Amino acid sequence: MSFAATPALAEPVADACRYVPHVADVPSAPRAIRGQLRATLSMRHAGERDVDIAWEVVGPVDAPLLIVAGGISAHRHAIASHDFPENGWWQNQSGSGLDARRFRLLSIDWLGADGSLDVAIDSADQADAIAAVLDALGVAKAAAFIGSSYGAMVGLQFAARHPQRVRRLVAISGAHRAHPYASAWRALQRQAVALGQLQCDEGQGLALARQLAMLSYRTPNEFAERFDAAPQLVHGRARVAAQDYLEHCAATWVARTSPTAFLRLSESIDLHRVDPREVRVPTTVVAIVEDRLVPLDDLFALAEGLPRGEIRVLRSKYGHDAFLTEPREIADILGKSLEDVCGDVA
Amino acid sequence: MSFAATPALAEPVADACRYVPHVADVPSAPRAIRGQLRATLSMRHAGERDVDIAWEVVGPVDAPLLIVAGGISAHRHAIASHDFPENGWWQNQSGSGLDARRFRLLSIDWLGADGSLDVAIDSADQADAIAAVLDALGVAKAAAFIGSSYGAMVGLQFAARHPQRVRRLVAISGAHRAHPYASAWRALQRQAVALGQLQCDEGQGLALARQLAMLSYRTPNEFAERFDAAPQLVHGRARVAAQDYLEHCAATWVARTSPTAFLRLSESIDLHRVDPREVRVPTTVVAIVEDRLVPLDDLFALAEGLPRGEIRVLRSKYGHDAFLTEPREIADILGKSLEDVCGDVA
Repeated sequence: MSFAATPALAEPVADACRYVPHVADVPSAPRAIRGQLRATLSMRHAGERDVDIAWEVVGPVDAPLLIVAGGISAHRHAIASHDFPENGWWQNQSGSGLDARRFRLLSIDWLGADGSLDVAIDSADQADAIAAVLDALGVAKAAAFIGSSYGAMVGLQFAARHPQRVRRLVAISGAHRAHPYASAWRALQRQAVALGQLQCDEGQGLALARQLAMLSYRTPNEFAERFDAAPQLVHGRARVAAQDYLEHCAATWVARTSPTAFLRLSESIDLHRVDPREVRVPTTVVAIVEDRLVPLDDLFALAEGLPRGEIRVLRSKYGHDAFLTEPREIADILGKSLEDVCGDVA
Repeated sequence: MSFAATPALAEPVADACRYVPHVADVPSAPRAIRGQLRATLSMRHAGERDVDIAWEVVGPVDAPLLIVAGGISAHRHAIASHDFPENGWWQNQSGSGLDARRFRLLSIDWLGADGSLDVAIDSADQADAIAAVLDALGVAKAAAFIGSSYGAMVGLQFAARHPQRVRRLVAISGAHRAHPYASAWRALQRQAVALGQLQCDEGQGLALARQLAMLSYRTPNEFAERFDAAPQLVHGRARVAAQDYLEHCAATWVARTSPTAFLRLSESIDLHRVDPREVRVPTTVVAIVEDRLVPLDDLFALAEGLPRGEIRVLRSKYGHDAFLTEPREIADILGKSLEDVCGDVA
């Protein structure tokens, strides 16, 4: 196993369609490094594989380490730094919920995110990839794993498989298994991509898949507020009020997404299963009442099944996307969850 | 304007994927006739058009007439009869909620249902088509309009535009306007059809659209009960538990559906708007708490806006499809709603 810091790559600007940018109030911007690690993983469905794992670490070398993981579209660049000043995918937590002065933040690009790994990928494989990066960085034990959406699923796997490597887990809007209705919804997104691929027009299939995903991330209440206008007839066809928004956002996403990566990471959510009883790390489950993708009942079932679990319930018209769009509430939960892991790990 | 009874046509068997067949307990099967009417309509978006309207009437000639209308996939064959013995799309209401011994039931094939009318169609046009059939049948005033889903939207238009032609309206799971989130969901279904058409594979696009629609008709709770199994890897790709069911149902539907018809009727739902204050006919609104397509709040807003409205609220794990899958509860509501329209109209 080897790793090496790589030069700064151009990172996409955070997607304004899903994220509410919120420039961090960081008096002195933290320093960051990036690296790429080649590791051999025993993948759950794909057997032994040599994989490349791209990582980024932000914050002081001697600070307690937080593993930070988001949805399948997230990546190693969680927040802006002196070295990589572009906004990250969780920029609005920078300096509040994710304080890179007190903590070192580690994120990876998901296995499969570059489209080069066209095999079934499991959340367990992602957890093992993160453990391999901890090895490479010489970190015996992380202070906490903060995971949202798919990142919460990976966090649960990490805690179950590597309980000695992390003190605490915060699992936001991700459960021990995918809900069957949400799985069906994602299967149809994958069908849309396949339909586009049939005609060598991957872009249109991907764009449709992304728009379907966006509906699952948001809520009717938000749409009722934003897209109340009557449909227009354009060239004799009805165009409804949300279409401009959905298509614009999908186009931004399509430009930076490989169909193979989307298919394999989407599928990975559905393959995910963890027995809550196996997650022995103290865990805060965060649930959003309005989440249409990860129902409240499933997160209560998770919290109740955890040996050392607690649950925090929020309301948000943004549903599943609340972790990206409700920065204060999320920062408050992260602050409380990290109170007791800070001092004794540093 | 002319109309003529046509010979019996082969009707598709009711779709087992959405409907729970329930053979009617009718001691002597009612008689039925079918006809086709050519009428000139002033269509809201498409101007003056000559259209053909296919209708069916079941029950005694001298009984009070009920107009019966369902979703965009429904048609003129609501229940089985001596003359047309195949199950209809609302077969499980035959003999209970829809008693063809006490009432005459009139249904039409929606304008555009045969795919030959490739223009924007409004719910107001459907209402006018039904009024034209009443004219042709010599019926001055119907006892009631019983509409579900799109049929409820058309019923609201009918009551607003032709208040002198109906004594009472029962509007099940359909509001005065489409919800913006539901409209976005349908717009993506239409995109799926367009994507299929681009590659000259209309079947796959339609099948994807239908599966997306089915998700909107049902609920996570039902899927959790029925499709709890873990996904399988088939040829290295995850296949989730609901996919067999969704694909089977879509194939059945695709075989009898024209892409143009689907596109124009789906769009028609989004174009629909009625001011509740204009609906002066006594109206019973029926809402399902779990409906993901027509939110409870919208149906309360409708009922509260109606000059003579009341609301009945049901719970059902079948969500929007409850009108098809909860025969007892629906029959009970229809029975109560029809009590006072029976005697004085016959």
